[in-house]
Parts: sequence; C-alpha cells; structure tokens
Amino acid sequence: MNKPTLYLIPSPLGNTPPSAVLPSDHIKIVGTLQDFVVEEFRTARRYLSALGLKVGSLKFELLNEHTSPQEVDGLLAPLRAGRSVGMISGAGLPAVADPGAELVALAHRNGFEVVPLVGPSSLMLALMASGLNGQKFAFQGYLPVKPVLRDKKIRELEKLSAKEHQTQLFIETPYRNEALFRALLNCCLPGTRLTVAVNLTMPDALIRTRTIGEWKKFKPGFDESYKKKPCVFLILA
Amino acid sequence: MNKPTLYLIPSPLGNTPPSAVLPSDHIKIVGTLQDFVVEEFRTARRYLSALGLKVGSLKFELLNEHTSPQEVDGLLAPLRAGRSVGMISGAGLPAVADPGAELVALAHRNGFEVVPLVGPSSLMLALMASGLNGQKFAFQGYLPVKPVLRDKKIRELEKLSAKEHQTQLFIETPYRNEALFRALLNCCLPGTRLTVAVNLTMPDALIRTRTIGEWKKFKPGFDESYKKKPCVFLILA
Repeated sequence: MNKPTLYLIPSPLGNTPPSAVLPSDHIKIVGTLQDFVVEEFRTARRYLSALGLKVGSLKFELLNEHTSPQEVDGLLAPLRAGRSVGMISGAGLPAVADPGAELVALAHRNGFEVVPLVGPSSLMLALMASGLNGQKFAFQGYLPVKPVLRDKKIRELEKLSAKEHQTQLFIETPYRNEALFRALLNCCLPGTRLTVAVNLTMPDALIRTRTIGEWKKFKPGFDESYKKKPCVFLILA
Repeated sequence: MNKPTLYLIPSPLGNTPPSAVLPSDHIKIVGTLQDFVVEEFRTARRYLSALGLKVGSLKFELLNEHTSPQEVDGLLAPLRAGRSVGMISGAGLPAVADPGAELVALAHRNGFEVVPLVGPSSLMLALMASGLNGQKFAFQGYLPVKPVLRDKKIRELEKLSAKEHQTQLFIETPYRNEALFRALLNCCLPGTRLTVAVNLTMPDALIRTRTIGEWKKFKPGFDESYKKKPCVFLILA
C-alpha cells in the first residue's frame, strides 16, 4: 500500500476546462482520492466533477481563514486512518497566497508525505511572460489599502527592486486594480518597467510590459474591463 | 489568422513523461508550432518528440547565456513573418531562473503577444509543499560560493525572513547541496524552519520541513543521494 499522502491539487484560475489545468497523469492521481480538504465546497465539487469524478461518493472538509487550529488538526484524520487526502484551494496553487499552508505544515510535523501536483500559478505565469528578471523576484501579496501607505510601499519596493535587481510582484482586489495602476504611474520612475498580467489562462488574458514612461503615453492606458478581472502587477526598476 | 505569438513552453524537471508535465490542451497548442527557440537542441528535440511532434520538420534556434543581443533580436524573425514561436528552457519554466527573459522582453517591445503555458515550477512546487508562508516569499537564486560570503548571506536572509515574515527560496548546484545544508544548520537559529525539496516531480521526490533544531537531531540528516539531485532550499524564521 502507498503511504498516506497529502496531495496539493492546483485548480483553474478561471472557468478553463481541466484539460487546460492539470497534466493528464495528475488527473489520474486525483481520481484515486476519496477525501478532500477544500476552500469552497461548490467550486471544488464543480471542478472535481469536470475532472470526471463522481462527487456524490467523495468526502469534503472545509479549510479557510475561519478554520481554527484544532479543526485543522482534525483534517489529518483520513491520513491517520491510512487514506490519502487531496487539498484544493479557491484558484491556482494550494498554500500559495491562500490559507492551506497550515495544514501542509501540520502534515510535515506529523510525518505524512506531501506531494504537490503541477498546475497554474498566476504569479509564475505572469513572471515568465513579463520579460522581467526571473532569476531574483519577490511576491509581496497585497499592498496597503490606504493611499498614503500604498504609495510609500510602492516607492520602497521600487528602491528595493533597483538595489537588488529583484522583480517585485503584487496583487490587488480587482475593483482596486485601476487605482493601483494609477498609483504605480504616479509613484515610479519613468524608466521602471511595469507588467500588467490580467485574467491569465483565460481567452482574454493580456500581458503587457512597458516602462512607466511608455504607459503614461499609451492610451487608453488601463482597460475598463480590467477592473473586474484578477491581475498580477510586476515592477523592475 | 491568429496573431503571431511567443508561447512559453514549460518542460520536464526530470525524465518524467509529457503527460505529467503539460495539460493536454497545451500539448495541442505546442503541436501547431513549427518554430522553436530552445536552450539545448537535444533535450528540446527529445521532449517535443515525446509530445508526439515530428521533430524532423521543425525549425530550432538556440538561446542560452552565450547568445548576443543581436542574435536574440534575430530570434523574432518567425514572428515578424507572421508565425508563432515556442520557447523551451532546459527544465521547468522558460524565463524563470534562466536566460529566456531577454527574448520575452524584446517580444513585448516589438508588440508581439506572449502566452505562458502551465507547467512545472520547482520553486512553486517546493513552496506549496513546504508549509511555509506562501503569502510572502522571495527567490534569491544562487547564494555566494565562498563560505564566508555564503554564511553572511544566509544570516542576512534569515533576518529578512523574520522581519518581513517572508519565505526565502534559493537553489544550489547539486554537488554543493550538502555544503549548503550544513551551512544552514550552522548559521540559522534553532527555531527557523528549513525545507529541503529534492528531485521534484520525480518518483524519488522528497520534501521535508523541520526546524533547524530538529534537523540537527535528525539522522542521517542529509541523504547521500541528494548530492547529485536538484534541490530547492526554503527558510522561514
């Protein structure tokens, strides 16, 4: 028998079919599992169903930012009983920019195997397609919401980027995309490169790299439709 | 006709079959291409052949650290002639920790579309499976080779990690893996967590997260076989 393993299962970034998400060998692995820890029941069920699994016979447990440490420990129960578990986050890679890391840490502390599967990472897709430095980079999560603090942080990150030749990646809640874009144009030096990577893996995905100076000249600048779509921002000074 | 596009094609991290590397829809996209820019002829041909392409009728150009800027510009020729191009690096994601970023930057400057495909990133696989902080992280590339400078850098990164709660990722040439592992045990605080992620996506892949204190107690510590295998190191203080 195989060792009980926590499989980390990437999920679609948008409503792409599973055949554009996971390698086919990985879909087979997911098909052998019966126990899942998921961030959202509905999207996880829909995804597994699209993968060809009969979701009615599967067991689901919830893991999100409201899950208490004791509850997280309870999620190891199938592993303790000798069964492997699949973990699925809302979109993209589990435990990267989402709450799953605690369960992974606990699996390590309890000596269970952890196997990450290959799938879409909006951060890596944006980075590889940016043309910015992929040899040194940092993901900063969300910047502060307050404009004064946000602008201060942007200037700090630009300086850090210049000093370390390190690409800086960050994300924003879609309805604030345009405000962040404007702030970047206001705060950064004309020669700094800014990449905007919108709705990755979707048919309308768009990735553009320009200097701040070029972005300022470019009209219409920030597309209206981006305001509702997930976007990764990258700068390199 | 579709716009001429630079497709960024991930490749296997080891000798895994393509069915464990790319989603099947992406394999179809690769099958429509005739022009490729590759880091190594032989591995790229072998990979495309395993994907089901007839490599004899394909055109290959080389892009590596010896390619001059003028030569990189020449690699856009098929795009200028209206044909899409596939870029393939030695292993994993093109333009992340490898020389392809220049060509991507040039494609942006010339107004061509850039489309990244989904595939294995050793860095993201290691990060998601580490249980360390996936909300904030930095990839530092290779640390200095000289022991004094390396140890200084390790201490700096540990401090940075503690201050920013930022997971630090770095890599090493396999034959120096053990030396780096020993240095981490010597330089870091007992409570700092260290993840060692070896030979990801391969049957003997191994991912272990322990505190420095636990690693010191753990025998045999660093497995002899790791000395020849690619490894990602991660710390979180």
